[in-house]
Amino acid sequence: MKPVLAALTLIGAQAGVAVAANPAIDDDALRSDAQGVFEPIPQAPDPAPAPAQAELGKMLFFEPRLSEAHNISCNTCHNLSTGGVDLSSVSLGHRWQKGGRNSPTVLNSTYNFAQFWDGRAANLIEQAGGPMQNPVEMASNPNHVIEMLKAIPGYTPIFATAFPDATDPVTFENATAAIAAFEDTLITPNAPFDRWLKGDDAAMTEEQKQGLSLFMSEGCSSCHNGMNIGGNSYQVFGVVAKPDPSILPPEDMGRYAVTKDEADKYAYKVPTLRNIALTAPYFHSGAVWDLKEAVKVMADAQLGAQLDDQQLGQIVAFLGSLTGDMPQIVYPVLPASVAGTPHPMP
Amino acid sequence: MKPVLAALTLIGAQAGVAVAANPAIDDDALRSDAQGVFEPIPQAPDPAPAPAQAELGKMLFFEPRLSEAHNISCNTCHNLSTGGVDLSSVSLGHRWQKGGRNSPTVLNSTYNFAQFWDGRAANLIEQAGGPMQNPVEMASNPNHVIEMLKAIPGYTPIFATAFPDATDPVTFENATAAIAAFEDTLITPNAPFDRWLKGDDAAMTEEQKQGLSLFMSEGCSSCHNGMNIGGNSYQVFGVVAKPDPSILPPEDMGRYAVTKDEADKYAYKVPTLRNIALTAPYFHSGAVWDLKEAVKVMADAQLGAQLDDQQLGQIVAFLGSLTGDMPQIVYPVLPASVAGTPHPMP
Repeated sequence: MKPVLAALTLIGAQAGVAVAANPAIDDDALRSDAQGVFEPIPQAPDPAPAPAQAELGKMLFFEPRLSEAHNISCNTCHNLSTGGVDLSSVSLGHRWQKGGRNSPTVLNSTYNFAQFWDGRAANLIEQAGGPMQNPVEMASNPNHVIEMLKAIPGYTPIFATAFPDATDPVTFENATAAIAAFEDTLITPNAPFDRWLKGDDAAMTEEQKQGLSLFMSEGCSSCHNGMNIGGNSYQVFGVVAKPDPSILPPEDMGRYAVTKDEADKYAYKVPTLRNIALTAPYFHSGAVWDLKEAVKVMADAQLGAQLDDQQLGQIVAFLGSLTGDMPQIVYPVLPASVAGTPHPMP
Repeated sequence: MKPVLAALTLIGAQAGVAVAANPAIDDDALRSDAQGVFEPIPQAPDPAPAPAQAELGKMLFFEPRLSEAHNISCNTCHNLSTGGVDLSSVSLGHRWQKGGRNSPTVLNSTYNFAQFWDGRAANLIEQAGGPMQNPVEMASNPNHVIEMLKAIPGYTPIFATAFPDATDPVTFENATAAIAAFEDTLITPNAPFDRWLKGDDAAMTEEQKQGLSLFMSEGCSSCHNGMNIGGNSYQVFGVVAKPDPSILPPEDMGRYAVTKDEADKYAYKVPTLRNIALTAPYFHSGAVWDLKEAVKVMADAQLGAQLDDQQLGQIVAFLGSLTGDMPQIVYPVLPASVAGTPHPMP
């Protein structure tokens, strides 16, 4: 055990402020608790998607011609260079229209129990078709997507390889299935937290461990748990105290729009906290840019807990331990348009 | 020598049309002529840019936070998955505004003698700063770009590694130099034409060789020559006959806007024809989508040549032999925004 109390006391003295000295972390005891609540991201997708489907899906994920103006791909709003998001409150789609909710990360989305903030898609296959058809996003439709893909001749053999049993492989269903297969590969193993969870005491800092301890003791982990540290339940946002309307706009009632169940008013899928340090701004509204502020909002709204600045900092430090290895993506070369390929419609 | 005449006659007979049988190509004679006019793309950039600068430049090339709304990167309009272009007549930029001219390919742009359609940038370093500042493109400015990059802490050590002698490495000049260094790597060797030019008779089809022969004999190669088969001179578009105003809009006078020299009215940099089969639509106006139509327009406007359908097809076949190996790009993971990073301004 390291001399943690002495170090913390020293930091407090240096800063010239009174800092409560936390009890030193007992890694074994904390790990035992944590292992009952969380699970590490696997090293590789299991089951692994068919490689030919994932490869096609990668092409389609980066394919701007799936959008009406040929300038928006899945990756535009779920950008794999920036944590699988677009770092904006809401996305800008077709004709610069704003999306309704903050773009959730595609990373580890395969481990969510449903897709979209309101869970209106049961899985990634269903989800993949949504933005293509949304008039404020890619603004196309299934018929036009297939007309387009069939008019880019290089795609046909790639679909045929990915779906060898299909007589007519270029279908909307196969396109969305391929995108989902690619997304199944977008996982981020080896986060410091996961390495610690598997037994490496040195993988997390003492501050991160203090944050983890608080995260569990304060009740954050009653919703943010499992492999994705979220993504496995719906919860009403503001169950203890409604957050500011800028954070929880009254007109967006969340899952209620899907179920029409009064109990679902302002319920949202609990988001994964994996790679959360990379994916500001936060909440379905994208209204909060600072992770510490977001933790404070959640403590107030969901737990009625008044956390002090040191505690918030520790939880933020813990959340920083949830950043895993980003998937390595070779940028795809897409099949060429030909004279018969439909033109963009800006 | 293969029995070319017999084969061509057969094709003509099968199609039930009279097709002029071209004299069979003498590879050695044609190659000897072609080697005096063209040059293959090197296997690797020479001189090679500093790897740390090219790696930083790759990040910046894909960096959407260089744009005012954080949704447009260099790659948006010079998309490396689609021939280094955006497959649109003109690009859609900030607030869905349309660009003034068709986005030229970034591939092999290092071999152009000047940049932009009107040559207003002497080199790629100068070019790289243009779109960031253009209000209808990325809509930022040098001060804001640097404010942004300095407020993404992960960039500072990467700039310091790329520019080890700089005391303050995060500068607009270094950012554009790094982007240019990356662009220096975006070359496409091993096109069938280049392999043929180096001695491989089988690398081109007979039709492509017939097209090359026509390309030289009709005069296309008097402007489209050298390593980039273009990109090394300015020429007045419509020197023999003005093309349709939809193709050559009267209000855009090309290089005249740069030089105010009457002789430069409607002069444009002759574009590279490298990978031209991938980069429709064509011309600075992006008004022509079909490559065969584009060849016809050029023959009419620049040469006063009436080419028949077979000849146009042969030249298009030759142009198809100019598609080289696309650069393999590992998609970059960009440094994270932090609480102090400026927000997008949509």
